[in-house]
Amino acid sequence: MGAFNREDNPHRRRNPLTGDWVLVSPHRSKRPWQGQTEEAVPSEASTYEESCYLCPGNRRVNGEQNPNYTGPWVFDNDFAALQDTGLTERSDDPLMAMQAVSGVSRVICYSERHDLTLPQLPVSGVQALVDTWCEQWDELSRQYRWVQIFENKGAINGCSNPHPHGQIWASDFMPTLVAREDEQQADYLQRHGSSLLLDYAHRELEQGERVVCQNDDWLAVVPWWASWPFETLLMPLAPTPDLAALSNERRVSLAGILQNLTMRYDNLFKCSFPYSMGWHGAPAGDTRGCWQLHAHFYPPLLRSATVKKFMVGYEMLAEVQRDLTPEQAAARLRDQPGKHYLES
Amino acid sequence: MGAFNREDNPHRRRNPLTGDWVLVSPHRSKRPWQGQTEEAVPSEASTYEESCYLCPGNRRVNGEQNPNYTGPWVFDNDFAALQDTGLTERSDDPLMAMQAVSGVSRVICYSERHDLTLPQLPVSGVQALVDTWCEQWDELSRQYRWVQIFENKGAINGCSNPHPHGQIWASDFMPTLVAREDEQQADYLQRHGSSLLLDYAHRELEQGERVVCQNDDWLAVVPWWASWPFETLLMPLAPTPDLAALSNERRVSLAGILQNLTMRYDNLFKCSFPYSMGWHGAPAGDTRGCWQLHAHFYPPLLRSATVKKFMVGYEMLAEVQRDLTPEQAAARLRDQPGKHYLES
Ligand SMILES: O=P(O)(O)O[C@H]1O[C@H](CO)[C@@H](O)[C@H](O)[C@H]1O
Ligand SMILES: O=P(O)(O)O[C@H]1O[C@H](CO)[C@@H](O)[C@H](O)[C@H]1O
Repeated sequence: MGAFNREDNPHRRRNPLTGDWVLVSPHRSKRPWQGQTEEAVPSEASTYEESCYLCPGNRRVNGEQNPNYTGPWVFDNDFAALQDTGLTERSDDPLMAMQAVSGVSRVICYSERHDLTLPQLPVSGVQALVDTWCEQWDELSRQYRWVQIFENKGAINGCSNPHPHGQIWASDFMPTLVAREDEQQADYLQRHGSSLLLDYAHRELEQGERVVCQNDDWLAVVPWWASWPFETLLMPLAPTPDLAALSNERRVSLAGILQNLTMRYDNLFKCSFPYSMGWHGAPAGDTRGCWQLHAHFYPPLLRSATVKKFMVGYEMLAEVQRDLTPEQAAARLRDQPGKHYLES
Repeated sequence: MGAFNREDNPHRRRNPLTGDWVLVSPHRSKRPWQGQTEEAVPSEASTYEESCYLCPGNRRVNGEQNPNYTGPWVFDNDFAALQDTGLTERSDDPLMAMQAVSGVSRVICYSERHDLTLPQLPVSGVQALVDTWCEQWDELSRQYRWVQIFENKGAINGCSNPHPHGQIWASDFMPTLVAREDEQQADYLQRHGSSLLLDYAHRELEQGERVVCQNDDWLAVVPWWASWPFETLLMPLAPTPDLAALSNERRVSLAGILQNLTMRYDNLFKCSFPYSMGWHGAPAGDTRGCWQLHAHFYPPLLRSATVKKFMVGYEMLAEVQRDLTPEQAAARLRDQPGKHYLES
């Protein structure tokens, strides 16, 4: 069989943020796809939609009227998954453990424009969004243990309204996946005396092959352990526990790399590229110094604008599996032109 | 706010098999769905399809011809995610750990009939499938550490060929999710001196409210910690480490409960109910006695044959979230008629 070849032989890679492994089967990219395809989404939305629940001035499902906002606008989710109940019921039964939880869910409309997704906003619009994230984190982290800021983009990805928007779910508990990252980062600091993600960012800068784009303050890579075909990890290059730690200058450079990264995504398959993205940083009040702020982008597409990766049978029961290597994915994103495909 | 009410107040429940928690937001079932819907799948397939790669006598993508099989037929996957490379490359780098892996991937056609899914097969056909699972486990567990038997059913669920079939991916490593169940079951045995899933099965029999169906040997429940709206867990009622431990009698009763459970699924939304399912049992050669055989069913549908649950933003970044409670889901499955909706 000869020597091991990362681009051809099945292998597993470990995610140091979770301790989970991912099965990489690069030779499998050759298989033809005969399964379900998604509808291609047309990209001629109008700037304002009368029937949209999120456009300025319109009425929502519950009858409330939206203000005539411009720029980012935040409001409480009408169908909140988390509520401030103040209830404290709890059971430690080893087979049926439970706990009542409190929290809040908000919606962030990115701007008044129904048609402008993140990569299409003017960079000042992205800066306003970054500022809103920081303000919301600042406000909600005073009251809640964990503030999860995220965006589901694209109908294929469970987004139920095309008006560009994100969400914030803040809770009085540390969610499962976050607790895992917490443990791994604390453990790494203890073993190595340095920050897991800062060490990692510098390794990626040195090696270069998984880098998608970068600027003075920020680095985006397809991580060594990526689960989703074109998953990326966005990290600051300096020690930064959370969003509150960002200077004005670094907020500006964050807006720049966000625009650059999401533009590459759109260009890859010439479509409004769907993804779920969100921020992870030190939990409110944390002083251990092990956390480094970062954003995960988890996009579902695999081969084209209409063929996605299904995380099903083997992935749900045994281990996440991917076909193309992270290095191949990074090269494809890196090679995209520096201009949005819809711009003339 | 009054007393805690499980059917109305947000809470988390713990999965004792993985240690993960799930956020339950029952009040959220009231939200209207305005997002993506799936195409309804017509159910008039023919018994044989000329263009199907899996029907008897047909040619596959790679040019090989299928035998004129009847009943279950097993062959090596033409696009195997796992291969027997014999390579042993490995790195323990804390940030970029990897290991070369070996294994095999097989396909199990359930029968020669292109149109008969598991709930539509005659019970003798389901028995033949159970026997095939047991034989495959027996053969492959001699050579591999973990043998993952599973089925992806339905195009919405990543199944790329409608001819009813499952898969087996066997590997020289313990996959991530399986290693977690291994650890939790071993830990429970050490703490309590009994089997986690046997104790759990008896608790569920006593309480009844999460039971979907049962017979003398088997029990199917929507588990306390279900992630997917209509997720179920199928367990034997007697100590049983793996598929090889099943007597002929218990294989027959397994075929019966499989047919009953999948028929309830089809009846729920009057469609060929998509799911991913698979078997977990003691790894080959295990003698610790902590493992209890079980099958997980993970179906994506939430509200109807065309509206599924999206495990996206919050779920990918923070914690899995569900709307209806496991008790509500179990009641709906329990209340289905005892006859397949397509039978007259
Ligand atoms: O092997 P299939 O059926 O072509 O592929 C399907 O099942 C595999 C195993 O769960 C997944 O990795 C694929 O994403 C899915 O489309
Ligand atoms: O809140 P939305 O956008 O209606 O809903 C979407 O995001 C939520 C949070 O990730 C998920 O729980 C839902 O399944 C998804 O459809």
